Amino acid sequence: MSGIATLPNSLSGPLDQALRARARAVIPGGLWGHLNAANLPPGYPQYFTRGQGCHLWDVDGREYIDFMCSWGPIVLGHHNPAVEAAVRRQAHDGDCLNGPGPVLVELAELIVDMIPHASWCVLAKNGGDATTACVTMARAGTGRRKILLARGSYHGAVPWCSPTVAGVTTEDRAHLIYFDYNDIASFEAAVDQAGVDFAAVILTAFRHDMARTLEMPTQAFAQRVREVCDSTGGALILDDVRAGFRLDLGGSWEPLGVRPDLSAFSKAIANGHALAAITGNDRFREAAQKVFTTGSFWCTAVPMAAALATLTELRRMDGPGHMRAMGQRLRDGIALRAARHGVGVIQSGPPQMPLVQFEGDVDFRLGINFCAEALQHGAYFHPKHNMFLSCAHTEADIDRALDAADAGLAAVARGFTA
Amino acid sequence: MSGIATLPNSLSGPLDQALRARARAVIPGGLWGHLNAANLPPGYPQYFTRGQGCHLWDVDGREYIDFMCSWGPIVLGHHNPAVEAAVRRQAHDGDCLNGPGPVLVELAELIVDMIPHASWCVLAKNGGDATTACVTMARAGTGRRKILLARGSYHGAVPWCSPTVAGVTTEDRAHLIYFDYNDIASFEAAVDQAGVDFAAVILTAFRHDMARTLEMPTQAFAQRVREVCDSTGGALILDDVRAGFRLDLGGSWEPLGVRPDLSAFSKAIANGHALAAITGNDRFREAAQKVFTTGSFWCTAVPMAAALATLTELRRMDGPGHMRAMGQRLRDGIALRAARHGVGVIQSGPPQMPLVQFEGDVDFRLGINFCAEALQHGAYFHPKHNMFLSCAHTEADIDRALDAADAGLAAVARGFTA
Repeated sequence: MSGIATLPNSLSGPLDQALRARARAVIPGGLWGHLNAANLPPGYPQYFTRGQGCHLWDVDGREYIDFMCSWGPIVLGHHNPAVEAAVRRQAHDGDCLNGPGPVLVELAELIVDMIPHASWCVLAKNGGDATTACVTMARAGTGRRKILLARGSYHGAVPWCSPTVAGVTTEDRAHLIYFDYNDIASFEAAVDQAGVDFAAVILTAFRHDMARTLEMPTQAFAQRVREVCDSTGGALILDDVRAGFRLDLGGSWEPLGVRPDLSAFSKAIANGHALAAITGNDRFREAAQKVFTTGSFWCTAVPMAAALATLTELRRMDGPGHMRAMGQRLRDGIALRAARHGVGVIQSGPPQMPLVQFEGDVDFRLGINFCAEALQHGAYFHPKHNMFLSCAHTEADIDRALDAADAGLAAVARGFTA
Repeated sequence: MSGIATLPNSLSGPLDQALRARARAVIPGGLWGHLNAANLPPGYPQYFTRGQGCHLWDVDGREYIDFMCSWGPIVLGHHNPAVEAAVRRQAHDGDCLNGPGPVLVELAELIVDMIPHASWCVLAKNGGDATTACVTMARAGTGRRKILLARGSYHGAVPWCSPTVAGVTTEDRAHLIYFDYNDIASFEAAVDQAGVDFAAVILTAFRHDMARTLEMPTQAFAQRVREVCDSTGGALILDDVRAGFRLDLGGSWEPLGVRPDLSAFSKAIANGHALAAITGNDRFREAAQKVFTTGSFWCTAVPMAAALATLTELRRMDGPGHMRAMGQRLRDGIALRAARHGVGVIQSGPPQMPLVQFEGDVDFRLGINFCAEALQHGAYFHPKHNMFLSCAHTEADIDRALDAADAGLAAVARGFTA
């Protein structure tokens, strides 16, 4: 089996390498967080200079058909004309003023109209702002403390829920109780443990933990969570930061017929402009008002104008439907080609947010090999994290990406027989 | 003494009122956070449609000379040509991609060059992201837990430090120890209480608590804090979110000759574009790398391009010097006019971030009266929170604002004799 080190073109381009060397001097580890290319397969660039639709160019001028969409935010494609026109108009008027622009009211009304469970919304900047605010509002509204969450779920990079514990104190997580996603018995045990102090359960829209086969929530699980929240008074928080506006414009659990009390949105809400939203029902309106949540840029008008245009466009064109169709085309094409190469693939997640894994690939060596080779052929995939489709992906883009995937599958097949 | 209710024009304009009514239906309390006009004197508008330089227009078309600068972010003035050109160029290329643009490296290098204590930086979106990251990095670097902070200081609207406690648990603040700003004995007592668990002290650049006369740090206090941190191994964190880049481009304690280990910046860093920065010295470089801090929009290139242009322009024109001169002109002019009216004013804070209070005005009635009347004459002041000068304020703007201030002082004087 071919190892990572033997791959051709295992370095990114020379301009990328030069920037990385400079960055290492002034940024700890070269880059913070989830976009650090050190965690990606060999050859993946760190620095990008251009985006257009679903196409990306790295600093060395190499072009890719993109299946990460900036890890979620780009939902209509880069430089979407409707969004960019709205941004230019709003920027021409005013962005960061002593109060919001009228666009705030239009956007809040649109969000409340689109999201059936929502009777109000509050805006913020980060997904973590929104999940933290939901938890705080749930505690304020119930007068209770315990937060139930699924083992391995990602809710943000803040001390109460960060996937790492450097600098985190025991007390930051004193009132968390863990259960297993989609496991009713485990959830009920957590509720029992919380007892009268059960403030809220927070759940991602589906199980999209890194480096794990994706898993949709079962109807039975979602319904049971809702029932238990209703009978005990705990709040149901949907962390729709990653999936929101890709699966269903009314919130990702609408197809299940299960409505949360509070939801956290961000990523795709403004097609790459920094915005997050907390939505809630009337039960938590007073709590939302009592909790002091704010930030220096939370009332800036340009990201709101971008969100208004993004959500309007997603609704007009049935964005989730388009992404589902394109994701299905990618999935079907990969399945066909994998079979031809005799490679066993495991494809999971909603078609709009797919993951491709390989049978028996416990150390992700095959996935890394697949992605590294596909990258050299112009498709930007990810081996461990769910990918993202956008409304800018066309059938021609998918077919071109399938050629790159085919090269990746061939490399995996060669690895099998080497 | 004239009460608030008897003021003329005590309502904002009709379009503003109509938007507020619509907002109340879909946003708890009408607006979250510090920009909620419900906390402002009568007549202050909630909604704005335009900014240019230091001039603002509300939704009803009324123009103001602005002394809040969006509560800090606007440091060069609205629509600064250098910043907006940089923004347009970067937006044309790409903003939110699968990794940062080369502008990240240029900006990080500039920040490290400008800030003498900094050997590295990490970027974020909110001031609260930066203060929270500093605290977490200090804990990770020292292996200790206790955070010392001054009673009444604002460090963000997140559970560990929010000025309100709705939804906050006791454990969120388990490791905080309070002392009094500028009080060496009180600080030393806090250090003693922390003992070997002293992770960090976090201090705002000066004492700028809401509704309190502003107070600069004394040289003796700042030096003693540094000495104690050096002798005990605790980190000195400067929360320069509010004051950063207005007082000194090297960080607000440079004039004191006292350098922090970690600093949090935001607000003015990118002239209204959403950005925050954590800077640190080499002692905390490894800790900064170990702490997982990230967000969906933390690598977007447009705010970085805005910051690069903003900091370059501030340096080129000696922005702090200009703002100091304009703030001093405002202060001198108010002092002169107050004396003429026989009104006793208390002016505090650095000239770039002034506060005007009135003698004996314990309930801020005079300050509110002053601001409400000045607003009707075209100057947007604040009665309780430090105000902000920008580089766009000219002598002519200050003089025009002094006419408005004079009307406000006359109203206060009338109040005294009514």
